[in-house]
Amino acid sequence: MKSTLYSLLLLCPGFVFAQEIDQAVLAKIRKEGLENSKVQDIAHHLTDVSGPRLTNSPGFQRAAEWSVSELKKWGLQKAEIQEWGEFGKGWQVEKSYLAMTKPYYMPLIGIPRAWTAGTQGPVTGEVALVNIQTEEDLKKYADGKLAGKILLTRPNVDSGPTFKADATRYTAEELDKMVPAVASPTINVPEQMERLRVQRAFRARVDSTMKAQNVKLEIVGRPGREGTFFTSNGASYRGDSPIANPAFEIAPEHAGLIARLIESGIPVTLEAESATTFFDKKLTTGNVIAEIAGTDPKLKDEVVMLGGHLDSWHSATGATDNAAGCAVMLEAIRILQTAGLKPKRTIRIALWSGEEQGLHGSRNYVKNTFGDPQTMKLLPAHEKLSAYYNIDNGTGRIRGIYLQGNEGPRAIFEKWLASFSDIIDHPTITIRNTGGTDHQSFDAVGLPGFQFIQDGIEYGTRTHHTNMDTYERLVMDDLKQMATVVAAFVYNTAQLDQKIPRKELPKPRAN
Amino acid sequence: MKSTLYSLLLLCPGFVFAQEIDQAVLAKIRKEGLENSKVQDIAHHLTDVSGPRLTNSPGFQRAAEWSVSELKKWGLQKAEIQEWGEFGKGWQVEKSYLAMTKPYYMPLIGIPRAWTAGTQGPVTGEVALVNIQTEEDLKKYADGKLAGKILLTRPNVDSGPTFKADATRYTAEELDKMVPAVASPTINVPEQMERLRVQRAFRARVDSTMKAQNVKLEIVGRPGREGTFFTSNGASYRGDSPIANPAFEIAPEHAGLIARLIESGIPVTLEAESATTFFDKKLTTGNVIAEIAGTDPKLKDEVVMLGGHLDSWHSATGATDNAAGCAVMLEAIRILQTAGLKPKRTIRIALWSGEEQGLHGSRNYVKNTFGDPQTMKLLPAHEKLSAYYNIDNGTGRIRGIYLQGNEGPRAIFEKWLASFSDIIDHPTITIRNTGGTDHQSFDAVGLPGFQFIQDGIEYGTRTHHTNMDTYERLVMDDLKQMATVVAAFVYNTAQLDQKIPRKELPKPRAN
Repeated sequence: MKSTLYSLLLLCPGFVFAQEIDQAVLAKIRKEGLENSKVQDIAHHLTDVSGPRLTNSPGFQRAAEWSVSELKKWGLQKAEIQEWGEFGKGWQVEKSYLAMTKPYYMPLIGIPRAWTAGTQGPVTGEVALVNIQTEEDLKKYADGKLAGKILLTRPNVDSGPTFKADATRYTAEELDKMVPAVASPTINVPEQMERLRVQRAFRARVDSTMKAQNVKLEIVGRPGREGTFFTSNGASYRGDSPIANPAFEIAPEHAGLIARLIESGIPVTLEAESATTFFDKKLTTGNVIAEIAGTDPKLKDEVVMLGGHLDSWHSATGATDNAAGCAVMLEAIRILQTAGLKPKRTIRIALWSGEEQGLHGSRNYVKNTFGDPQTMKLLPAHEKLSAYYNIDNGTGRIRGIYLQGNEGPRAIFEKWLASFSDIIDHPTITIRNTGGTDHQSFDAVGLPGFQFIQDGIEYGTRTHHTNMDTYERLVMDDLKQMATVVAAFVYNTAQLDQKIPRKELPKPRAN
Repeated sequence: MKSTLYSLLLLCPGFVFAQEIDQAVLAKIRKEGLENSKVQDIAHHLTDVSGPRLTNSPGFQRAAEWSVSELKKWGLQKAEIQEWGEFGKGWQVEKSYLAMTKPYYMPLIGIPRAWTAGTQGPVTGEVALVNIQTEEDLKKYADGKLAGKILLTRPNVDSGPTFKADATRYTAEELDKMVPAVASPTINVPEQMERLRVQRAFRARVDSTMKAQNVKLEIVGRPGREGTFFTSNGASYRGDSPIANPAFEIAPEHAGLIARLIESGIPVTLEAESATTFFDKKLTTGNVIAEIAGTDPKLKDEVVMLGGHLDSWHSATGATDNAAGCAVMLEAIRILQTAGLKPKRTIRIALWSGEEQGLHGSRNYVKNTFGDPQTMKLLPAHEKLSAYYNIDNGTGRIRGIYLQGNEGPRAIFEKWLASFSDIIDHPTITIRNTGGTDHQSFDAVGLPGFQFIQDGIEYGTRTHHTNMDTYERLVMDDLKQMATVVAAFVYNTAQLDQKIPRKELPKPRAN
């Protein structure tokens, strides 16, 4: 009977026995993570001390160098900033001043749009309210009537009072609804790329029309509320792209004020001064990589990875997106080192760059290390990776994990989550895919890459790409919980008899 | 039996029969207020078009002049800005720029503290973190170690994620809890005045110590959250007070950032430029007053008043505090005029100045018109006022009324509120006093002055004295409801056979 069951299980693809958890190790991890946490100090360094961490900017560099130096202090091996290829231009803000001066004075909450030029000294001008979404729109403004003007685009959003809390946690009912499989959205990559290309080309024509008309500055009202605004993806950072015209992104209330005045026939004058620096010569950027060497002779060549993206947007210190995830991963590594654990497999941390512009750091790392998702030509290390764990959904504590369509590790993860029943309320496993961050780079070559289910807190309302994504938005107790859980997942993965089960390999892509 | 009841009621002080409501008139008021509302346009003019309305500032003047001109257009009589005495200095911001420049660049959300000097051009300096609450604290800093520095005081508040909605409405349970009488807090006026005097004197010593040490600028982190901050009461606006040192009030996250960097031993440099203008020569300011003349030969000398304060703080356009109340009161008057109603008693609107600095406009108006609350020497008009209705609790719709300790009008108000059962959910009357605004000036001389119970919406969380008290925060549907209800209350009061019952007259004050 037993052997029949065993044979049956062997036939079940990807099935792995959930081994017993080493309770003594778990106790050490919990003690270090929950009672001696350093995650607050790590988060302070990544946010306050480093500053905004746009890829290739000095702020990113500060955070990366500090991380390497900490990892070395903790005794990790091969700690370095590992270059992965060409990113494009670095950029940072050196001055940001914007105010309405007529009909009366009002300082405006805003920041230069990423990768735009500065104003080359103070500028003043009357504001023209525009809405340029199509070629037809652009034609309307091609007659020189915008000459010498400052342009304002208002945000098409409701910024009125909200009767819902900014910060929320998942209820048990909401988590239960996440469990059933849903069809993954079909993403037509060539179509998507073409749409982006068309958008960029149109935006370049708008830019050159504005430049030809001597438009002084563009102001874009952004979604948000009460002093918080969500920045955009910015202008092009490519090494060969022309430098975009000066532009500010501002809070919706201030854009609304100017727009309403103009609609009432009242002329509005702004004054502005911005300075931005491009770092043209440094076209490469790197991921922070470090390792705890495995100790089992048979398994030490195998690797368990954990990571998150270290880069952020530029209008705040990127606390929840994604200093939180990096602080958790660094702390998880610190916990394992401080607890003196000797993993069988090698544990490798990666803090990625270029995530915000398209997962560049992780995609290139995977391509350079494991294989090419386009051709599915795999490198030898592909066989050696057990799993990659990622954190990039803000400050909220772990409530479960996305299987990313991979049923194999369900029983293992169930057991591991259950071992934290006191600090994970209603632990949840879903077969679903979740997107938008670096585990996808692993998934794309058929490697087990996982993202955790985290409480949302204020991610969608206040912090994701906003000017208010600051240290204050971090919930330290949640960061501690995450680091402790991740440390255990990573260690347990390193100790498993087998690697984490995999899905079928993806097919090479036609395009 | 009937006559016995009647005699009994006559013995019951302040009892007044609730007359029947004129349903045709009510229908006209509802139609004009709910279907043809102009409150949105009025609110736009008071906020966006006028700008911040600090008493005696050009913004206040714009709003007052526009209000007078509208009232005249609507056919009101005696529309004017009526001076009430000496207020002090007018003041406005002409430039406001503040940024961290080291260890990296970050523009800071802030505004000059009211009635402080500008920086006289750009200033740069290293930040010293201080906490000066007592004479002992001040002594610590009297040794010149602050010379040439920029001082930062951090806010002692939690600005972390909040799991409560910013905007709320009263539940029926909450309203029911407001009904029972509670003991009014005993306010020891001489003690309170002395405490304020001591505070001002200490603040002046801090200011002169800092000036003597050549402190360049003070930065005060204020309570708030995510780009919203609550400004303070500012420096002294008195005509004879020395001009206070340059100071900014800033968002808590930005104060927190600087403070944490300094605590980590990292030097922080700021650059700032502010310009402020004092309007020293114009030491008087006025209330906007206008009337709809009464038409009943016996009652037209009697007056019903409605009002709210027109002045605001300076960091936004004072939308909920209190353009909302003024827009509602102006709209209520417009409704009555447009509906062509001919009230028996005279109806008078008053939009007050100087409320934010101590109800100056209404207190002086009451003293000049009705009597002195100190001596209780009353003027002839005291006998002629039926009631004063005030709105100053933000944008939230009317849910009931505070009787202000005056049981007399309960039955009348119950009936009037009930006539709006479709737009007032769970109408509530409480015997309680509510404070902090201009109806108190009337109450202080024994005149019936009432403030409505309004839904809080975001008043305590986002708008009251904040930099984000903008037009976006207004709930237009609630303003319409308020204007309609107030128009009916005012008209009904003008038509009553008797004046609104009064409480016993207060005693003259010892001090």
